[in-house]
Amino acid sequence: MSKIAKSSAASKAVSYVENDMILGLGTGSTTYFAIQLIGEKVANGLKISGVPTSIATEQLARKLNIPILNNFVRVDLTIDGADEVDPGGNLIKGGGGALTREKMVASASTKEIIIVDESKLVKELGQCPLPVEVVRFGTEYVMNQLQRLGCQANLRRAEGELFVTDNQNHIIDCRFSAISNPKELANKIVAIPGVVECGLFIGLADKVIVGYEDGRTREMDFQG
Amino acid sequence: MSKIAKSSAASKAVSYVENDMILGLGTGSTTYFAIQLIGEKVANGLKISGVPTSIATEQLARKLNIPILNNFVRVDLTIDGADEVDPGGNLIKGGGGALTREKMVASASTKEIIIVDESKLVKELGQCPLPVEVVRFGTEYVMNQLQRLGCQANLRRAEGELFVTDNQNHIIDCRFSAISNPKELANKIVAIPGVVECGLFIGLADKVIVGYEDGRTREMDFQG
Repeated sequence: MSKIAKSSAASKAVSYVENDMILGLGTGSTTYFAIQLIGEKVANGLKISGVPTSIATEQLARKLNIPILNNFVRVDLTIDGADEVDPGGNLIKGGGGALTREKMVASASTKEIIIVDESKLVKELGQCPLPVEVVRFGTEYVMNQLQRLGCQANLRRAEGELFVTDNQNHIIDCRFSAISNPKELANKIVAIPGVVECGLFIGLADKVIVGYEDGRTREMDFQG
Repeated sequence: MSKIAKSSAASKAVSYVENDMILGLGTGSTTYFAIQLIGEKVANGLKISGVPTSIATEQLARKLNIPILNNFVRVDLTIDGADEVDPGGNLIKGGGGALTREKMVASASTKEIIIVDESKLVKELGQCPLPVEVVRFGTEYVMNQLQRLGCQANLRRAEGELFVTDNQNHIIDCRFSAISNPKELANKIVAIPGVVECGLFIGLADKVIVGYEDGRTREMDFQG
């Protein structure tokens, strides 16, 4: 995604931010642009509280003097990215490993805006591996249970070490040949003991904003 | 539960242990007796591998020279306790905070034997608070979602501090006036983002052994 496409989508999303909002702050390279823009608005007098979906986002927000709120019951608006978006507005998220906090904030949000470039739009979810956050204990058992759902499962590594999430857990990346019923699959995955959360976001996006290289944007609204 | 009732139930359960088994080792004061007996058998030549359901149990097993297996795909037999047992063999577990690992090992087990005294037998689950393990982030949101299911929810504390599980998470204890449909409730709870696992064990117990003060035991078999 070029800088222009990213900043166009981010800028459009940030136009929905209003004074006094509790604002969910997503994680990732596209959301980074949105948070920068929110920081500029805060410097110019906008009053909001930001709920960060990762430690990295919290650090960025603090640098930009965005007031941080870590305890929330509901969130007015969240701006976040996605790894895949299907025609129904269902998502795969978690490429960056922040899926659990992102899903908590998305679920608490009155409005969830997802910003992507067109490469993220897919006919069917499952083109990229589905991230599943798991506790550190018994990962072989959980991998085996996931494989029985029809995927190739791999414990995520980063620089040779097992990847550790902000919640001190591991990630299992699950490569399915196709995900024909994402809602059913999500229910089956979270029912496996040891699974904390899976990267399928079903019915959580209210709006998807696609940014293009020429600076145009396209908005798609969904029943979130 | 008196020492006699505990050791009677534990002794009966341990009589099902056979050579070469992968053995799930539960957590808690009743299971403690079973692990002591298994340690004696190992000292006398029994060959098994023990999968501990908590750090405390692992430490106890190591002291008794029980070989430890922390990576497993299936377990032959698990002996564990419970806080409540209903007439269908469904359980509430997690008073000690080890519910997630206990549920993983129970789910992986060909045979799950639960040892209790008769005070743990209830007509309907929910006499004691239901423990729910949650990530440390966004606990106010999760508490609110749990309360919407009809309970009084409290973050567990120990010695003034928030209780931390072996998985580095917190526990929310949920007091329901009644749990009429435990399976449905369990599905609703684990679907809340931020919930790692809940203490409802549905259809996981294959056998419940009740120990009595006079040393008698009673066995109840269930479709595990």
